Amino acid sequence: MALKMYDLAAADPLLRFSPYCWRTRMALAHKGLAVETVPWRFTEKDAIAFSGQGRVPVLLDGDKVVTDSWDIACYLDAAYPDRPALFGSADARGAALFVKRWCEGQVHPALVRLIIADIARIVHPKDTGYFRESREKALGASLEAYVAAEEENLRHFHAVLTPLRLTVKDMAFLGGETPAYADYIVFGALQWARCASPQDLLQADDPVAAWFARLADLYDGLGAKAPRATAA
Amino acid sequence: MALKMYDLAAADPLLRFSPYCWRTRMALAHKGLAVETVPWRFTEKDAIAFSGQGRVPVLLDGDKVVTDSWDIACYLDAAYPDRPALFGSADARGAALFVKRWCEGQVHPALVRLIIADIARIVHPKDTGYFRESREKALGASLEAYVAAEEENLRHFHAVLTPLRLTVKDMAFLGGETPAYADYIVFGALQWARCASPQDLLQADDPVAAWFARLADLYDGLGAKAPRATAA
Repeated sequence: MALKMYDLAAADPLLRFSPYCWRTRMALAHKGLAVETVPWRFTEKDAIAFSGQGRVPVLLDGDKVVTDSWDIACYLDAAYPDRPALFGSADARGAALFVKRWCEGQVHPALVRLIIADIARIVHPKDTGYFRESREKALGASLEAYVAAEEENLRHFHAVLTPLRLTVKDMAFLGGETPAYADYIVFGALQWARCASPQDLLQADDPVAAWFARLADLYDGLGAKAPRATAA
Repeated sequence: MALKMYDLAAADPLLRFSPYCWRTRMALAHKGLAVETVPWRFTEKDAIAFSGQGRVPVLLDGDKVVTDSWDIACYLDAAYPDRPALFGSADARGAALFVKRWCEGQVHPALVRLIIADIARIVHPKDTGYFRESREKALGASLEAYVAAEEENLRHFHAVLTPLRLTVKDMAFLGGETPAYADYIVFGALQWARCASPQDLLQADDPVAAWFARLADLYDGLGAKAPRATAA
């Protein structure tokens, strides 16, 4: 039986844009596990109340419910040890946790500065009020004011990517010759931006763009073929 | 036969303070390999000319000469596969390379802002002129001017450590339950500062300080017992 996953969706149910859900989609594909994704919107807390919390991804594997993208990755390696590992060793898992902390602390905030107003344009109408109010309260600014310094924000985003750029200049993936969960963590962030925003944030000659394209092409183009926002 | 390693030394030949050499010292100890260290000063290029380059660490394993701390780590895992691995898997090696890029791009420059003038005080008299001139040219400022904004520089250093702090708050080591090469990369940076400077740069309640102490205590206190600079 296929696994089932609640996956953040835009007004367009095929447009999926959560960085955390993208990590999990890639992780499931890496392990060769089929998954049925259920589109879910921010305000549909009732639909996932069974999981004991209010965020996606939520993974159902038979009767087993797993939440939190990191816990899901650890679960998949433990539950399916005969399939390709997301973490090749204990120290790979440790260093991947470091990559996660770096990504969420530096890459995610730099992307919010670039795409948060774009996200407000794609969310389901029933999410619009919740999304704008909760984010403007958290950011202390209107979404439009928060992204106003476009050039400076883009420069900062490119600067933040420096350690990734220097790494994938010399290696195909953070996993080495083949991708690993550390790749999917950062891929999720850039795929979030790619799907939620019509902006092209990476320069064509950036080694990060080539690395991102390699990941997007994996698993029959799971990332590359995914619907993205179009310019208004 | 013990391995031999050229190791950057201060005027005091027992005071060793290269971040790259510390990585290698820890890596050799991790693998249980005895090493004879040879004190080396910046201006002794002739002494390591046989290696085809002018930096330490230089490792001699019988007739084999290996330079560059990263290449040495990879060499040790390849040459001594039956001893504890520095990289548990290919993806651990990839993520460790990311940690190296992050450390050298963010932690090292933040530490230079704090300790470069202290280093000038401990180097061998024959290195003093070379050290000050080459560094002041590279930094575009006198060493004393470069470290003048002490409080701001310290705040920046603590901020830079955030992804490490959040990781080792939840895990004993970047390697997980046991240390791995990614730990030694960042340990080398902090041990560089600990040995070259009398300043205590980490706050006692910082999870990074506890993680550093765990590493310094390894291998019979290799890091903790190492001589450090004393206040002038």
